[in-house]
Amino acid sequence: MSISSTTSRVWNSRRLAKAARLDAARDFTDGKVVDSTRLREVLQALIRPGDRVALEGDNQKQADFLSRTLADCDPAMLHDLHMVISSVSRPEHLDLFERGIATRLDLAYAGPQSVRIAQLVADGTVTLGAIHTYVELYARMFTDLTPQVALLCAAAADRDGNLYTGPNTEDTPTIAEATAFRDGVVVVQVDRLVDAGELPRVDIPGDWVDLIVVADRPFALEPLFTRDPRRIGDVEILKAMIALCGVYERHEVVSLNHGVGFDTAAIELILPTYGEELGLKGRIARNWALNPHPTLIPAIESGWVESIHSFGGEAGMERYCAARPDIFFTGADGSLRSNRVLCQLAGQYAIDMFIGSSLQIDADANSSTVTDGRLSGFGGAPNMGHDPGGRRHASAAWLDLAHGDGASRRGRKLVVQMAQTFRAGGVPTFVESLDAIDVGKAAGMPLPPVMIYGNDVTHVVTEEGVAYLYRSDSLEERRECLATVAGATPVGLRSDSHTVERLRRDGLVAFPEDLGVDVRRANRSLLAAHSIGDLVDWSGGLYDPPARFREW
Amino acid sequence: MSISSTTSRVWNSRRLAKAARLDAARDFTDGKVVDSTRLREVLQALIRPGDRVALEGDNQKQADFLSRTLADCDPAMLHDLHMVISSVSRPEHLDLFERGIATRLDLAYAGPQSVRIAQLVADGTVTLGAIHTYVELYARMFTDLTPQVALLCAAAADRDGNLYTGPNTEDTPTIAEATAFRDGVVVVQVDRLVDAGELPRVDIPGDWVDLIVVADRPFALEPLFTRDPRRIGDVEILKAMIALCGVYERHEVVSLNHGVGFDTAAIELILPTYGEELGLKGRIARNWALNPHPTLIPAIESGWVESIHSFGGEAGMERYCAARPDIFFTGADGSLRSNRVLCQLAGQYAIDMFIGSSLQIDADANSSTVTDGRLSGFGGAPNMGHDPGGRRHASAAWLDLAHGDGASRRGRKLVVQMAQTFRAGGVPTFVESLDAIDVGKAAGMPLPPVMIYGNDVTHVVTEEGVAYLYRSDSLEERRECLATVAGATPVGLRSDSHTVERLRRDGLVAFPEDLGVDVRRANRSLLAAHSIGDLVDWSGGLYDPPARFREW
Repeated sequence: MSISSTTSRVWNSRRLAKAARLDAARDFTDGKVVDSTRLREVLQALIRPGDRVALEGDNQKQADFLSRTLADCDPAMLHDLHMVISSVSRPEHLDLFERGIATRLDLAYAGPQSVRIAQLVADGTVTLGAIHTYVELYARMFTDLTPQVALLCAAAADRDGNLYTGPNTEDTPTIAEATAFRDGVVVVQVDRLVDAGELPRVDIPGDWVDLIVVADRPFALEPLFTRDPRRIGDVEILKAMIALCGVYERHEVVSLNHGVGFDTAAIELILPTYGEELGLKGRIARNWALNPHPTLIPAIESGWVESIHSFGGEAGMERYCAARPDIFFTGADGSLRSNRVLCQLAGQYAIDMFIGSSLQIDADANSSTVTDGRLSGFGGAPNMGHDPGGRRHASAAWLDLAHGDGASRRGRKLVVQMAQTFRAGGVPTFVESLDAIDVGKAAGMPLPPVMIYGNDVTHVVTEEGVAYLYRSDSLEERRECLATVAGATPVGLRSDSHTVERLRRDGLVAFPEDLGVDVRRANRSLLAAHSIGDLVDWSGGLYDPPARFREW
Repeated sequence: MSISSTTSRVWNSRRLAKAARLDAARDFTDGKVVDSTRLREVLQALIRPGDRVALEGDNQKQADFLSRTLADCDPAMLHDLHMVISSVSRPEHLDLFERGIATRLDLAYAGPQSVRIAQLVADGTVTLGAIHTYVELYARMFTDLTPQVALLCAAAADRDGNLYTGPNTEDTPTIAEATAFRDGVVVVQVDRLVDAGELPRVDIPGDWVDLIVVADRPFALEPLFTRDPRRIGDVEILKAMIALCGVYERHEVVSLNHGVGFDTAAIELILPTYGEELGLKGRIARNWALNPHPTLIPAIESGWVESIHSFGGEAGMERYCAARPDIFFTGADGSLRSNRVLCQLAGQYAIDMFIGSSLQIDADANSSTVTDGRLSGFGGAPNMGHDPGGRRHASAAWLDLAHGDGASRRGRKLVVQMAQTFRAGGVPTFVESLDAIDVGKAAGMPLPPVMIYGNDVTHVVTEEGVAYLYRSDSLEERRECLATVAGATPVGLRSDSHTVERLRRDGLVAFPEDLGVDVRRANRSLLAAHSIGDLVDWSGGLYDPPARFREW
């Protein structure tokens, strides 16, 4: 083959296209600053039919001025867009599809829009690329899903495009990097525009930002991680006691993530009471990959916590985090710095344990939050809820679950699922077959949307006790183990007393009495805080709960 | 329990300590700029005994002015440091320990220092924390290994501390973020200091940087990913042909990473010849997570490659990457933007296949580069060389390896190991027991330092053929499979002809004739480039090979 490097190919087509798009928007901009009243025209000039567009819907922070305006664009001009939205949280995210502006969607999470998204997929209005875990979606932005345009969100900018995110840095730097460094157009809505040098800190350099627009109102923020202690009942407290004795203490769990939910909130609130009584302070739960959960305030104030790195911020926790820089990652301006990718990296590779709640678990311990026709997505759980095959460093907890021989011997991350045997209304949590199988079929997905796979789960904690699934030798024994803690559900009814006694004796399951947990003590008196008001008191008035959580 | 938030605890001790350190260095600094002739005094003022210090030794870029100066400090003042160095590449990284300045080491890779590090661990001079994969080490910087001081490296800075890294962004933003946002001190050596606004682009905001120092000479850079086509022989070409037919084509591998080595360089160089002949252009190998390998130039120029995101740069590839922005991620200044964490994320979650060479493989397919008393570390391989349990999106290749039933059914990433049955000098690659077991014991490691675990490996390619390990039903069958391609090594001699024929028939192994590979064609005429000079020609003169690779 002869060497031929004199191809006539254009090697900077993306750069030329970007320049043309920015040029087309120039009538409505002053330098990098967009005239807010002309944002619709600007978007119609920047975006072309068929474009891949990343729209910042994060777990908390929402670029809602941009999303509302995009949904209001003319479908004759903008159509067939391929939207990449990590968290489909707002009605207009789906209006885009109903109005014919977008047709294809890649996402990670769809909490409040989960019913509607399932319907739109079923009727063909939305063509689903895939549902990802967060970091998987970002990984693809550097591979085969790089956006032509990114619509992002920050707290403030200067005229050079330097951005200040405040505590909610979240996903902005990652999406900006994927777009800016492959000649995509980066547009950012900000709450305020300040003079050069007046930003409290720079979270993203202006170099990476093409256009900024001052939003019509402050960006939307969801307090997803706030749980009111008033809603924690005796069953959650019992499960928390069981988890603390049967998992945290037994395996010396030092570094961890807590999922969102009342189960783990209960654990956070009994650390300073029951945990202290057990003599666990300083021995467990020191290093966290976690959003600033308000229910962790009593444990922080009581000296349990050494460090917390966060995926995002939490509404109302701004002043508290800023006042506790020894614990939280904060910037020179004093406020929290979060970063979803880096916190997910910590949650995958650095921590001993991931523990979260599940809505539905099958006999093999597969679990999903996809129930009742909801296509709720995965969020961050799959990334943290598996044993990372690339981990090579040891910790006491990791080694405690070691398995294999010779060169094949390795430790294991704890992946713990908490569940109540029945949900509200008497619906069993443990089922023969996950709803996810039917929902996946209806959506034309190649595989069922399972959140956490059974073979990744090491422990299941219910109000009945702990199933130590990682100690089972076979799939059959794992099923027996799980059935033992599944109560009177269809899965639990498979259990027989002979098997149960064998599993208890062999240490594959443990009931409260096996763990020294006195079930009579499982009541609200064990909670370090009984209300949002108590959390405010614990924080010395630094925590400012959102209005919906104020009961006074 | 009563609510007590009026603790007397100090919550900003890290911030106070940082201020005190910077204050102690003030005599030798002008704003953020350190007097280069007083760097030793500055380091002695900033760092305290027992500190955790991150020192930037990346795969390629080395903060060598800082490391040489640190090694020259007074051990009476600086001692018992805990060094966190991703790549222990330079002699002074270990001089630190011999001089008593540092005692503890956490690392990811120790290529050229691998023999000496094994000796220093054995004699107790170095206390090993753990050997990590790259991103795992960074994950711990946000959890339990956050540095008090980071010593980093960039191409240029302005007086506000804004940094320009050029193509070698690599690990700098991640280490800076972990340190800066937990009140650690960030010191950066730069090749040049420029006026405000004169940086070609900003890779890291000045906010995150406390001090900059102009280095005594340009930072050291290792051309780790350059392979001279002259050194590729017929056996590598045969393996490349087998891999292309038996793996790439068979599974429709679209997105991938190539490890460093002559095996994968040979594959890169036969894409425009043999690959073209097979009609594979546009069907395979389009999206890459890869450093800018010079041996990929002919495939890029021939139109095979859609995108490449890079962990780091490669010496000599600067002008070529800048001239191909449709392919590489580049900044507004035109030059490459690399980022190890984000590329490793792509390499873990987004790609169909990881393929790399191995020096030693045991009968269970565990492999390691730890041989002959070398403690060479892991680098990035473990992160990419396993099936990520958190992956949820499908691709054709991933689904082609699907396994399990019902809710448990999922796809699988291809993890391919290439090896020649015997290394130079007649040393068998396939062995009964990995050297890593003894090396790990000597170093007091809790588990043997295995690079890629056998149960993560889906394919092994040798000059004998392909073993499709993922199709085996049992550990025993996996061993049989592997033995079939292990030639006359101790592992290969276990194989018998009856078993071999059964495995061929059942599609668990394939020999060249089974794949339509004509072994007589396995010679250098298939290479698109025969020398570094040819690569320069293919690049149209844009590739500038380092002096050591220039044969003219």
